[in-house]
Amino acid sequence: MSELSFRFAGEADVPAIVALLADDDIAGHREEGTVPAEYAKAFAAMSAMPTNRLLLAERDGEILGVLQLVFIPGLTRRGATRAHIEGVRVKSTARAHGIGTALMCRAIEEAKRAGCTLVQLTSDKRRARAHLFYRRLGFQQTHEGFKRLL
Amino acid sequence: MSELSFRFAGEADVPAIVALLADDDIAGHREEGTVPAEYAKAFAAMSAMPTNRLLLAERDGEILGVLQLVFIPGLTRRGATRAHIEGVRVKSTARAHGIGTALMCRAIEEAKRAGCTLVQLTSDKRRARAHLFYRRLGFQQTHEGFKRLL
Repeated sequence: MSELSFRFAGEADVPAIVALLADDDIAGHREEGTVPAEYAKAFAAMSAMPTNRLLLAERDGEILGVLQLVFIPGLTRRGATRAHIEGVRVKSTARAHGIGTALMCRAIEEAKRAGCTLVQLTSDKRRARAHLFYRRLGFQQTHEGFKRLL
Repeated sequence: MSELSFRFAGEADVPAIVALLADDDIAGHREEGTVPAEYAKAFAAMSAMPTNRLLLAERDGEILGVLQLVFIPGLTRRGATRAHIEGVRVKSTARAHGIGTALMCRAIEEAKRAGCTLVQLTSDKRRARAHLFYRRLGFQQTHEGFKRLL
């Protein structure tokens, strides 16, 4: 088995990423099996921001993991830039092999390189195993996450 | 008493905003009483991003409330743009007068106008009254918030 490799996504990766986002018990129903124009439009909007990227883990040309990495400068915490992570997904048939850990570690490296002093994410309260995973990675479960659909 | 008004912050507002961030029992200790260069640098970084603004509530020229409003396009949720809110603060002597509610409602209006389909934030687990406040505003407390200092 080849080594896992990492890179930022390009437009051609969008269909494979959408398939990965749909391959999830809790949030998968929010996606489409097909790839309507909304996804391409969203990817174009992300690409216009140098601080909003999709980090991919792949092996033998197959995308096995994805996360969205956003750098957010702000005034709080003495003018800190925070790394904000959304949509961490590992292909269902490839879980429990360290891909999520490797992907998160790579994201943290990128965040440090960009001068971030904090990395943050939220995880659905139903994802008990994910919570353990993040705590093992050194995250502290200090906040409540609130969402409101508009 | 004059009406509350709202506007996005300019560079000249940074010292007053930092004072407001420091005026908080839970997170205030993370800030400086003075305004070192880091804050101006962070404000400049924010200003370079059209999707990362500080929304202010003021009355009679005094800033009474602040929040950071960030629009984040992404692939999840069918290519949704989410409004992400950080650092919601109301001056300690002006709390419980509806300023926070008015500020949040204004942020939600801005988010809708920008085409966001979701608004999200996290709140320290120690802020029980804030959690009730967000639930009353229609937020669902569905996620755990994880942070790791780098």
